[in-house]
Amino acid sequence: MWFVWFVVKIFKMKTKKIAIIGASGYSGEELVRLLLNHPHAELVAVTSRQNAGQTLAQVFPKFASHPRSKILRFTEPKSELLAKQADAVFLALPHGVAAEYAVPLLDAGCLVIDLSADFRLKSAEVYKDFYAHDHRAPDLLKKAVYGLPEIYRAEIKKALLVASPGCYPTSILLPVIPLLKAGLIKPTGIIADSLSGVSGAGRKAELDYLFVECNESVRPYAVPKHRHLSEIEEQLSLAAKEPVTIQFTPHLIPVNRGILTTLYLTPAEKSVDAEKISACYQKAYDPEPFVRLLDGKNLPDTKNVNGTNVIEIAWRIDPRTGRLIVMSAEDNLVKGASGQAVQSMNLLCGFPETAGLI
Amino acid sequence: MWFVWFVVKIFKMKTKKIAIIGASGYSGEELVRLLLNHPHAELVAVTSRQNAGQTLAQVFPKFASHPRSKILRFTEPKSELLAKQADAVFLALPHGVAAEYAVPLLDAGCLVIDLSADFRLKSAEVYKDFYAHDHRAPDLLKKAVYGLPEIYRAEIKKALLVASPGCYPTSILLPVIPLLKAGLIKPTGIIADSLSGVSGAGRKAELDYLFVECNESVRPYAVPKHRHLSEIEEQLSLAAKEPVTIQFTPHLIPVNRGILTTLYLTPAEKSVDAEKISACYQKAYDPEPFVRLLDGKNLPDTKNVNGTNVIEIAWRIDPRTGRLIVMSAEDNLVKGASGQAVQSMNLLCGFPETAGLI
Amino acid sequence: MWFVWFVVKIFKMKTKKIAIIGASGYSGEELVRLLLNHPHAELVAVTSRQNAGQTLAQVFPKFASHPRSKILRFTEPKSELLAKQADAVFLALPHGVAAEYAVPLLDAGCLVIDLSADFRLKSAEVYKDFYAHDHRAPDLLKKAVYGLPEIYRAEIKKALLVASPGCYPTSILLPVIPLLKAGLIKPTGIIADSLSGVSGAGRKAELDYLFVECNESVRPYAVPKHRHLSEIEEQLSLAAKEPVTIQFTPHLIPVNRGILTTLYLTPAEKSVDAEKISACYQKAYDPEPFVRLLDGKNLPDTKNVNGTNVIEIAWRIDPRTGRLIVMSAEDNLVKGASGQAVQSMNLLCGFPETAGLI
Amino acid sequence: MWFVWFVVKIFKMKTKKIAIIGASGYSGEELVRLLLNHPHAELVAVTSRQNAGQTLAQVFPKFASHPRSKILRFTEPKSELLAKQADAVFLALPHGVAAEYAVPLLDAGCLVIDLSADFRLKSAEVYKDFYAHDHRAPDLLKKAVYGLPEIYRAEIKKALLVASPGCYPTSILLPVIPLLKAGLIKPTGIIADSLSGVSGAGRKAELDYLFVECNESVRPYAVPKHRHLSEIEEQLSLAAKEPVTIQFTPHLIPVNRGILTTLYLTPAEKSVDAEKISACYQKAYDPEPFVRLLDGKNLPDTKNVNGTNVIEIAWRIDPRTGRLIVMSAEDNLVKGASGQAVQSMNLLCGFPETAGLI
Repeated sequence: MWFVWFVVKIFKMKTKKIAIIGASGYSGEELVRLLLNHPHAELVAVTSRQNAGQTLAQVFPKFASHPRSKILRFTEPKSELLAKQADAVFLALPHGVAAEYAVPLLDAGCLVIDLSADFRLKSAEVYKDFYAHDHRAPDLLKKAVYGLPEIYRAEIKKALLVASPGCYPTSILLPVIPLLKAGLIKPTGIIADSLSGVSGAGRKAELDYLFVECNESVRPYAVPKHRHLSEIEEQLSLAAKEPVTIQFTPHLIPVNRGILTTLYLTPAEKSVDAEKISACYQKAYDPEPFVRLLDGKNLPDTKNVNGTNVIEIAWRIDPRTGRLIVMSAEDNLVKGASGQAVQSMNLLCGFPETAGLI
Repeated sequence: MWFVWFVVKIFKMKTKKIAIIGASGYSGEELVRLLLNHPHAELVAVTSRQNAGQTLAQVFPKFASHPRSKILRFTEPKSELLAKQADAVFLALPHGVAAEYAVPLLDAGCLVIDLSADFRLKSAEVYKDFYAHDHRAPDLLKKAVYGLPEIYRAEIKKALLVASPGCYPTSILLPVIPLLKAGLIKPTGIIADSLSGVSGAGRKAELDYLFVECNESVRPYAVPKHRHLSEIEEQLSLAAKEPVTIQFTPHLIPVNRGILTTLYLTPAEKSVDAEKISACYQKAYDPEPFVRLLDGKNLPDTKNVNGTNVIEIAWRIDPRTGRLIVMSAEDNLVKGASGQAVQSMNLLCGFPETAGLI
Repeated sequence: MWFVWFVVKIFKMKTKKIAIIGASGYSGEELVRLLLNHPHAELVAVTSRQNAGQTLAQVFPKFASHPRSKILRFTEPKSELLAKQADAVFLALPHGVAAEYAVPLLDAGCLVIDLSADFRLKSAEVYKDFYAHDHRAPDLLKKAVYGLPEIYRAEIKKALLVASPGCYPTSILLPVIPLLKAGLIKPTGIIADSLSGVSGAGRKAELDYLFVECNESVRPYAVPKHRHLSEIEEQLSLAAKEPVTIQFTPHLIPVNRGILTTLYLTPAEKSVDAEKISACYQKAYDPEPFVRLLDGKNLPDTKNVNGTNVIEIAWRIDPRTGRLIVMSAEDNLVKGASGQAVQSMNLLCGFPETAGLI
Repeated sequence: MWFVWFVVKIFKMKTKKIAIIGASGYSGEELVRLLLNHPHAELVAVTSRQNAGQTLAQVFPKFASHPRSKILRFTEPKSELLAKQADAVFLALPHGVAAEYAVPLLDAGCLVIDLSADFRLKSAEVYKDFYAHDHRAPDLLKKAVYGLPEIYRAEIKKALLVASPGCYPTSILLPVIPLLKAGLIKPTGIIADSLSGVSGAGRKAELDYLFVECNESVRPYAVPKHRHLSEIEEQLSLAAKEPVTIQFTPHLIPVNRGILTTLYLTPAEKSVDAEKISACYQKAYDPEPFVRLLDGKNLPDTKNVNGTNVIEIAWRIDPRTGRLIVMSAEDNLVKGASGQAVQSMNLLCGFPETAGLI
């Protein structure tokens, strides 16, 4: 009996058809990698204006050994057609563009997981302030669930539209939210200093991201108002139950992948209690498959998470200053983008949350 | 008449004989590069235990086209001998070791420029607290001048012993001291987040600094109490005329050279006055040949200073948080070590301050 | 019925216990990665003198999310003990050392897959000529099978001792052997020019492999007689059925992983027949899961094979010179070492050849 | 008396005014660097369509500390105007475009040093075969001198138009020409395998040269007929006094700068005489300031020449194959482009050949 049930369950799991709109950028490519090897997902469509007509193998030689890579061809991104082909659709498009596709896909009954910034905020005004154009589907903002599974697991399971978080926000929110919720740190004076690999800038033919311009170079950018601040502060405010304004400085460093974030936090009480912080993180993340709390002398290192959906977190109290220093490392394209989006897809579709990710 | 005077002056300038003790590490090598091409210095001796007997050309093939590289041989580091050969001696040795050489060299009348941490602090106790061993020449601490020419130019000119600053301290002190002296920022709550290239770790055969361990890796280290804190805080306290404690987090990034420091500062007054900050920096650094204040949209980038003795500084006021963000970029081996030491030598020896450095 | 048979088969497959002797180097680490995720292998022991007592998670933080990583501890390498624990043992040791372990393990009935050079040659004299010491288990040389599955699949299936090929040899032999066997190229005048990532030098604390010494550097080494020549020439001679002497120049380039080999070959007949070469490669490698023949304008690129067990091969006839240029790309740690060794393990143990490798 | 003569000579040297047409690419930038610091050249004009109106300091922040950088503004490239301003003009333009500028500049009496391929060949037909368009100033081909000072010093001194060699050609010609001229190697069967840093591809906003596409990647390209073959073979044929056809394979490796070339040569006589080869190279290059013959165990390494105008050469005879392996390393932007062009300018203008280059 149980066996029949088990076979039925496996069978049911195996049925979801998946499409990716905008599959030729770095996060699109990473989605392709994850979905080609996903046990319960069938990649049925990939779109790309400039590569339409070509096979996956032609555009991404690295996938050429996968049997589907020579069959699956890039198509023009047409919502109606994709809605018929796929149960769930990933949008890996620039912000502003994603909103246009989400509406018809949702209307047609598709689950939508958007990797752009279009549905991450609750407010169309804040969106306009940070992204400099009107939101194109403001009604959907209420329906979208912020796709941070460690925080919104229950909501994601019931969602129709998931707004997958940005790479920097993930590296900041996962370390900070539990501390804010537990009241262990002050919601004021938070500083996030982040270092990102160059794939974070996207696959764009711009001089700034040429090898020669990035190699042997380190530079801050978008100081002091990076767009990701909007979603970071909204999520931190929700956790703190009061408005939170933070300082955030991104830097570009010469690695392909990886974000390292160093957070400067002020404990709520003068006598910082290391055990309380430890207990808070243990409670929040010990059962989480993709959060790795470092112990002993270990500090985060992007090389230990690259290619995986894991975020590493370590913390130190500085007795000289009384501050709490929290550091995190993630792969910007996996936990910071496509891996986390697949994690949400697993929740949406009723698959095991770690399917295709370990 | 003037011509005779000019010739005499040039001639006088040309007479200084220079030795480097510990010339096989990265800052030693950089000293060799700078001194081989210095118009008024004659490199007469280089020492290295492991390379004794070999020529400069054999140890550093990159210098092999310089005529002196095939004549000058590494010797064992013997103070008495070097004291006879050289007018001024650079110590590019590990901390703790430098102090041993400084005493006999000074006694013999040599000018000494030490690139280690041994003479950077005023207090032997603070030294012991941070370097974990007793200071070996505590009497010299009072006589040593901290070799930051932009701050201590007059003192360096008269010094016999110069303690050349560390790489991280230079990247922090030059941007912060003028603001502190002018009372434009609070001496509390200062945070320095620094990113350093791997040469900062020295030429040491350790697994942590292998190519494969550093490439595609970013990591914080020595959190929260890096040794350089001691000299940074001493110098900042002198500038602020009160004890200053700062937060400092160094990170290792995969570049050969370069330090990028991002500073989080709190303006002394609520309504930050951008013009005052601009005026303060202009006054302090506009005439300085090796400090480059960036204007417009420019932000520091290590690739624009690598190989030079220049430090780039830019700043932004964040109207959202009221903080002042100051960013600096330098070559850790030049302005952060050997270039700055040569700048001090120029002052010590009466050469033009920029000789051999531009 | 078929279901019972299927379950039994799966069950049988699942039983092999695997040990790795010398698991702290780069190929050892890569074996750990592959075996932790292998569907039919259970990693039961890892050894390392310097890390004995520590868990996998402590030594390799990147594996810390795997449940076994906190249970499995490094031990001292003791053959008797390992022989009791494991069905098959990988030796990831320096040449000369591996032979010592192989004898007792084989005597105890273990299958042995050696990643060192110790059993790759048929002749103890040639070994001594290239490795400068007497072979320690010359009797085993006849029993060992050269672990290049695309060439020796049948032999590997029946072997007790597999000598897994070197990284450079794999990148040269797979492209050249089919051409030699088919008589399409002359066995004389072969030139192999190879570029290798730094992990090929092993995890050794040597100045030459420091980040600063390798980054922004390219250099040939071991010219003209690299040790790998011995196994390359032996295998090519077997394919050509006559003694083959080749020219081989390895270079070190600043990447972590990857070997790119460019081969200069002379067609056997003046009028080179592109179709014959194409047919030869198609016949040899079209069914092979880990050999990717590139078509169209594509040329090999290490970034398309890194992290996989695939070798890419492309070729061009130069009408101006009449030469055949063949280029290959592989991950030196996967197809060039640990992946290929696992491929051999799959054959030895009766698992699907691609198990754990795609 | 001698003093007056000396002052007059120095004075005369100091008078040349120099312009650069196309100063915003990588070799243009390197020319700017070299000429800003040149003792006898005054940089009076730099042109760039996209940067017209901006100062040197704005376009290249790294030069911002140089006093001229804030005065000198990029202009539109107008030959007539430049001809009035400058005594000598560098053309750092794409091939095909350079020819258009050379004619009016020469007519106006300017010395012209062209870094493109436009005047490197003697034959307009060969040019068309390799560059796929008609030559725009075929009459000038006879007048142009190939700017390899070690080979054509006397001719360059008298030239009006210098065609500065390509980066790959320099790395191949300097090692091979003396051997060919001395009859020590056969002019047949020459193979050149070259590895180039990414700056060789120019400052072009193309996906192929993005950091993420180049880092952790190695790839051959333009196999088997790279454009540089035309000038390499023409020059080798002149040296051999018979037509020479070579095999040449360029590869792209993840460094900013540097070309490493490995040459496979066949000695003219069976019993290769190492002393003759040594003597040949000594005779050719011992007096040359920019050719470094390596001795002992040293092999070329791009890190030892980067930033300098030096080419390193080493060679080995392989007793197993009888071949002569010659290896060279150069900075593709200096000896391979702008440094060599300045070396030619020094000869053209009567300056010391090494002025501004060491």
